[in-house]
Parts: sequence; C-alpha cells; structure tokens
Amino acid sequence: MKKRLRLNAIEMFNPTDTPGFWAHPEDDSHRYKDADYWVELAQLLEKGRFDSVLLADVLGQYDVYRQSVAPSLEHAIQAPINDPTYLIPVMSQATKHLGFTVTVSTTYEHPYALARRMSTLDHLSKGRVGWNIVTSFLTTAARNFGLEEQMSSAERYERCEEYMEVVYKLWESSWEEDAVLRNKETRVYTDPTKVHEIKHKGKYFSVPGIHLCEPSAQRTPVLFQAGTSNAGKTFASRHGECVFLNNPTIEGTREAVEDIRARAQAAGRDPNSILFLPKITVVVGSTEEEAQRKYEEGLLYSSSEGLLTMLAGWSGIDFSQYGPEKLLEFIKAGDSRSIVEFLQNNPNREWTPEDLAALYRYGATTLFVGSPEQIADKLEHFADETGVDGFSISYVTRPGSIRDFVELVVPELQRRGRVQTEYEEGTFRRKLFGGTDRLPDDHPGHSYSAAQAQSV
Amino acid sequence: MKKRLRLNAIEMFNPTDTPGFWAHPEDDSHRYKDADYWVELAQLLEKGRFDSVLLADVLGQYDVYRQSVAPSLEHAIQAPINDPTYLIPVMSQATKHLGFTVTVSTTYEHPYALARRMSTLDHLSKGRVGWNIVTSFLTTAARNFGLEEQMSSAERYERCEEYMEVVYKLWESSWEEDAVLRNKETRVYTDPTKVHEIKHKGKYFSVPGIHLCEPSAQRTPVLFQAGTSNAGKTFASRHGECVFLNNPTIEGTREAVEDIRARAQAAGRDPNSILFLPKITVVVGSTEEEAQRKYEEGLLYSSSEGLLTMLAGWSGIDFSQYGPEKLLEFIKAGDSRSIVEFLQNNPNREWTPEDLAALYRYGATTLFVGSPEQIADKLEHFADETGVDGFSISYVTRPGSIRDFVELVVPELQRRGRVQTEYEEGTFRRKLFGGTDRLPDDHPGHSYSAAQAQSV
Repeated sequence: MKKRLRLNAIEMFNPTDTPGFWAHPEDDSHRYKDADYWVELAQLLEKGRFDSVLLADVLGQYDVYRQSVAPSLEHAIQAPINDPTYLIPVMSQATKHLGFTVTVSTTYEHPYALARRMSTLDHLSKGRVGWNIVTSFLTTAARNFGLEEQMSSAERYERCEEYMEVVYKLWESSWEEDAVLRNKETRVYTDPTKVHEIKHKGKYFSVPGIHLCEPSAQRTPVLFQAGTSNAGKTFASRHGECVFLNNPTIEGTREAVEDIRARAQAAGRDPNSILFLPKITVVVGSTEEEAQRKYEEGLLYSSSEGLLTMLAGWSGIDFSQYGPEKLLEFIKAGDSRSIVEFLQNNPNREWTPEDLAALYRYGATTLFVGSPEQIADKLEHFADETGVDGFSISYVTRPGSIRDFVELVVPELQRRGRVQTEYEEGTFRRKLFGGTDRLPDDHPGHSYSAAQAQSV
Repeated sequence: MKKRLRLNAIEMFNPTDTPGFWAHPEDDSHRYKDADYWVELAQLLEKGRFDSVLLADVLGQYDVYRQSVAPSLEHAIQAPINDPTYLIPVMSQATKHLGFTVTVSTTYEHPYALARRMSTLDHLSKGRVGWNIVTSFLTTAARNFGLEEQMSSAERYERCEEYMEVVYKLWESSWEEDAVLRNKETRVYTDPTKVHEIKHKGKYFSVPGIHLCEPSAQRTPVLFQAGTSNAGKTFASRHGECVFLNNPTIEGTREAVEDIRARAQAAGRDPNSILFLPKITVVVGSTEEEAQRKYEEGLLYSSSEGLLTMLAGWSGIDFSQYGPEKLLEFIKAGDSRSIVEFLQNNPNREWTPEDLAALYRYGATTLFVGSPEQIADKLEHFADETGVDGFSISYVTRPGSIRDFVELVVPELQRRGRVQTEYEEGTFRRKLFGGTDRLPDDHPGHSYSAAQAQSV
C-alpha cells in the first residue's frame, strides 16, 4: 500500500521567505500583519487537506553578511518579525482540523512559562498544537537578551535536554487525569491530592512547583525537530515525533532519514513512529510550459543579496568578502548548518556554481517545477526513494504558491491515494499517527506520565 | 457636562473570580478553556459598548493560607490559569472596537520578548492593546522561575523603571515612522538608515539592538497600572495612562485619585490625562427585590475558605492561624496589599466583622446591589464624588453578571448620557483619550520617540 503523504506548510510571521519574492507583483506579503491574511491562509490549507502549518521564528536579526543588520532590513530577511505564537488562536478559530506547529527557542524562554503557553494554545485549539524545538543560533538574539555571547552548540543541547525534562514533568506528571472535578455539589474544583509538585532541581533549572494549567487534550504538544548536526540528530531521534529536513538530494535525505531512524531504534523507540517532512518548494502550472514560464518570471524577483544575507546568517561566513567561487568552495568544504551541511554530505555529486545558483534563487531548498502530474510524480518518487512521510511546502509568492499547490497538486495526489480527502477526527497527534492523543509509550516524555511526584 | 464613564470588564483566564461562585448553578466558568466562550463574551461587551476588558494574570499559586497550594486548587483561586495574552487574538477577531488590556509581569519576562509580544498583539488587533504593568508578588512564581526568593518591592520597582526605559526605546525610537517602504520598484523593503539600535545598557538589562517588529498603530500599548503602595503610586503617576483602584469607600478612592493626580502633576503630566477605573461588583435585577433575591441566593455559593485563601495570598498572613476577630484586627492594623491597605487607609470608618463579611462574600471589592436605576445612581454618585473616569466591572457569575450589566445597567447609563452609544473610530488610545494614537507629549515614554539612537 502506498504511504499517505502528510502535508505541512512552512510560514513565518514576517514579510518574506524566498528572498526577493515579496516584490513580485502578485505577492501579498505586505498583508502579513493582518489577521485576516492568516484566516484566509488557514482556510485555504484546510481546503487542501494540509495536516499542519509550521510557523518558524527567530528572535534576532541576520547580521553576518556585510557585518550589518542593514541587508536583512533592506531585503526583509526575517526582519521585521512578529511573535508567531499569536497566530495560532487566529488560525485555529477559523478552522476545525488544521494543526499548528510553532518554533519556540529553549534559549530565551523559561520552561515554566513555555509550558503554560503551549498548554494554553492546546486548550484553545482543542489539541491541535505542535512545538518545533530549537536552541537558537543568532548572536543578535543572544545579545539582546543580555547574554554576552551565544552558548556553544553542545551546551545549548545539554541545557535543552534538561529543559525537556522540566516541560515533560509539567505537562505529563503534574496534574493527574481526574484531578479536575468541577463538582458543584461537593464544591471541589480540583482534588489537590491529584496535583503534584514536580520538584525539579537540575544544573540549569529549578522548578519545584505544580504546572499552572490543567491537562490539555494532548498534554505534550506534538514535538517537531530539525536537527542537522550530530547533536541535533541525536536530539531529534530522542524527542522528535516529526522531523524537518532540508536536503536537496534524494541520497542526502535518505541518509538523514535512515540515520535518525537508526538512532531512534537504538534509543528504544519505534523507528517508523518518526515522521519526516522535508522542505520542498514547488512551482506548478496547469502545463509544463506554464510552470516553466512562472519559474522564469520568478527569477526576475529572486534576490542574490537577500540569499547571501540568509546563507551568511546560517553559516556565520560573511560572503561579501568572497567571489562566487569562494562561495562554492565554502559550500563544498562544508560548514555545520542546514543546506550547507547537506551539500557537503553529498560527495558523490558535483555541485557547479550554476547548480547552486539555480537551487538558491528559489531559496536554499529542493525545487520542483512542472505540471500537476509532473510535480506529483516527483513528490512520489522523492518519498518512495527516501522513506519520508510527507512534505513541508514552502512558498515563493504569497499566497499564490500555496493556492496553486492546493488547487493543482493536491487533487492529483488525492487521485493517486497519497493525500487525505477527509480529515480524521481528534487531536493533531491522533490525526498524524492514529490511535492516541498522548505521547506513545516508547517516547521518553511518556515515562513522566505515571505520576510519581509527591502531591502538594 | 457630565463626564463619560468608561467601562472596563475584569476577567481572568481561569475558572473563578469571586470565590465560590463557580459552583453557582447558572455559572459557566467551566467553559473558560473554550475559545468560543471568549468570543461570546467579547461580543457581549461590545454590544454593551464597553471600552475594554482587562485580562488579569498570575504566574504562581496562592500558598499562604494553610501554608499549602491545596486550598487554592480546591476552590480554584486563580488556579488553574492559562496564559491570557492568547485570548486577545481570539477576542479581537470577533470584535471591531473593544480594547484588550493584559497583565504581564516585568519580573518573569525579558523586555526584548515582551516588547515583541505587545507589538504583535497591537498589529493583530489593529491598535487595540493595553498592558497592565505588574511586578508580581507570589513567591511560588519566583521559585518556579528559579529565583530563590522574591525581590524586594523596592528592587522590583527600580528594575521595573529600567524595564520601561527599554520597552519605550524599542517601541518609540527604534523604527522611524517611514522606515518601512515596501517599494516593489526599488526592491527596498525597509530603509536601514531609519531603523536604530537602542544601545541600552543599564543595571538590569543590556539590549543593544533594534526592535524585532515594525511600528504598530499605537507603538506603546495603553499603559495600565494598579499601584497601591507608595512606590506603586509613584510608578502609576509616572507611567500609568489608566489606573485601577480597589478601594471600597468613596473617601479612600477620592484620596487615591487625588494623590496620584498630584504626583502626576508634580512629574509634569496633565493630572486629568490619567483615567481611574475602580473595581466594582454589581448585582442587578429588574427590580430592587429581584436584585436582593439574587444577592441572597448568591451568598449560598460564596466560599469563605476561598476568600481567606485569596486574602492570605495578598497579605502574606495565614489566616488559618487566627479567629475572625484576628482577621478584623489584622485588616484594621493594615498591611501592604490591595484591599487590606485600602481598609486601613480609612480610619474614619469602623469596620465590623459583619461589614467585612458582607464585603468579602462577593469578593474583596465594592459591591452595589439594586435595580438598574439604583445601580446607575450609585455609579454616578461614586464617580462624581471621587473623580474617577469609569469602572472596572468584575463578575460574580459567568457570564450572567456581565450580561445583566449590559442588558439592564448600560441602557440606563446611556439614557443618562454617561455611557457611549456608539464607538469612536481608531485605536484603543484614541477611543479612550481622543485625539491621538500615540503616547501624549507629556508622557515619559514620549521623549524616546524623537529617535536619537544611531542607525544600524
């Protein structure tokens, strides 16, 4: 049987994703501050039977390229950027089924407050929330939060492990399932013997008390991760229920999937319980020719300066210091982040500057151009060859890219039995995995649910 | 001319306000986790031409009474409690005019993140957000955020002054009015020369960079404060645009109003530009008899244990150690918080235990019981005698108290020309004060708006 492909849209609460395309005549990114834009997008995604939308985030600016924040402002590279968590109530009120995953850094938010935010959003959306766990990488963010310098990657992950322990305790073990009675006869709202202090005392956090919120439908939100470093992959294999990838090749994607599944198995988890959702950019037309024309028109708007600003932020290298060959050399020599790493992990392929330019001019990601049938072919092929479970669809123009995908590609994938035609009932986790609203038995967060903590 | 009375509703994202009333047969507080409850409430308030709703908050539990969190759980005294900021997108999407003020503590949220949250909410609501500035008082919150003990009140206010400086710089001076160009011809989204680093370096915070968000309609949200201590009153007179009071007497309220207005004048502000909105609880019936019957039925649900839990939390005294006379003695001797202080500040009145019981059984606040005409008389009299500018209406049962007020009291106040029959257009600040969307010239936050900071 063919595997159902999950569809996730990638968004940010800012004016641009693919650098430069905000200036496309058909682009509506200037509406990003308008709640109605997000209502319409959510309804469009639900019409297309998308499983979820990811709201990515940063808490600083890109300032590596030309050693200045100026290029990121000029090209709107993730600046300005609003707090994406507030889009979830807007979008969840306008939909019934769509899931909402939001990026929140463990570096700048205390776990006691983060746990409440996520429980609140899970309550308001009736169990449709996911959390994309990141440890942050922008030094501008670190400085504005009063940290003299960014923690090392290793320290960030060590702290993040303890962070997860704290939030699991709050979500899974603090309030027993039947703690809240709301008994108007006995006048007891909550049975205090069934609410437990978590008594956490670790290297980074001290959280003695109870969780602020009563249990939500999922308790722990669906956990997303996008680790690409060795530490990141280990983290994803331990905690991730869904994993993003951004590797432009089938080989690189397959390797990453197999690597993380193997690590998960070694950690005692069902390797197939992790869903992989690589990032894909699609330019689709009703015919191949129309798609090609759209693609070529789009190139008029792609911004090299914007791309270099983004790549510099990811890699920490100021590309304004080098010619194009240096960029290629750097990419081939490899660095530790995202696309840069995926490229260096593909030694079997020769990357020419032309390859890279083509790849990058629609953002540093996998690009599929073609008719609905061709796109469906490519997506099925990519999935079958790599073992991924669906795709994270990014946009080029807003909301055109998503509208085209919903109107042209989704019906074709539905005809092929690859995309759901109706939603399952229930929480985001139940819709994604079937069966359960809560973390599965073999997930490390589950072990906290047998409340062992002492009652208050 | 009679002064227009502003109406503000007091809510919390939890199951109870007046202790015990969640168990009233007509109370719908169990719906507090349901977004639709808040949609309906927002629409009801807008129907009643309320100016705003205040979403109060705590980040810990009440654990002084019986030296345990158990009573607060049993009686649902501000526990469980969700994050109220997420109700704003829900309610603003369902309304056009209502303002939304939310309590956020300066103790547990970094100003760089708080500034983004407020700008985001102001964008999504198109300029309808207020911030109730608190410095927090619950030691359970301090402990769960890893602080061994709560900061002293003086230190909290000193830190809060610097906190305000940081957020004013981010909101008022970082992005010039015409920084964002969105020019599709020149392909410049933001003019970097018009975005300024705030370069803040103080005792408590170091924030060198730019604000994450472009300017929202109000830039700085409408600033609410409820200071009752000497330091609190000074803070309110400097920063507050709206001030809550919770003093059950006309004399005490008038003194507080005059005191804060005098302090504001001494600080160079127009003393009448501060709006005072004391907390009032109303039990209204279509006749006096019906109101009295409602009041007496309500007493069956009032919870002494719940009240003592709340008062113990406010005062820091565990009343389970004392008889009722001790409570009276304590209240008369005075302490530093809220109602307790207001009572001691009224030496001209003899407070009997019966007075206190009556007062407290509907929550520690001013209670008016009567027909619509009687309530309107009392509100007008209270306003005229004290110089306040409106009222913060709390609920007893949900949503019955607000529904009764909207259906019975508001039309009477409108007939008397005291409550608006239509909303003005524009932002929350413009609706409240007329004239301007931004901080007035004599407000300390305004001085930051002439951007002096160096561009990026």
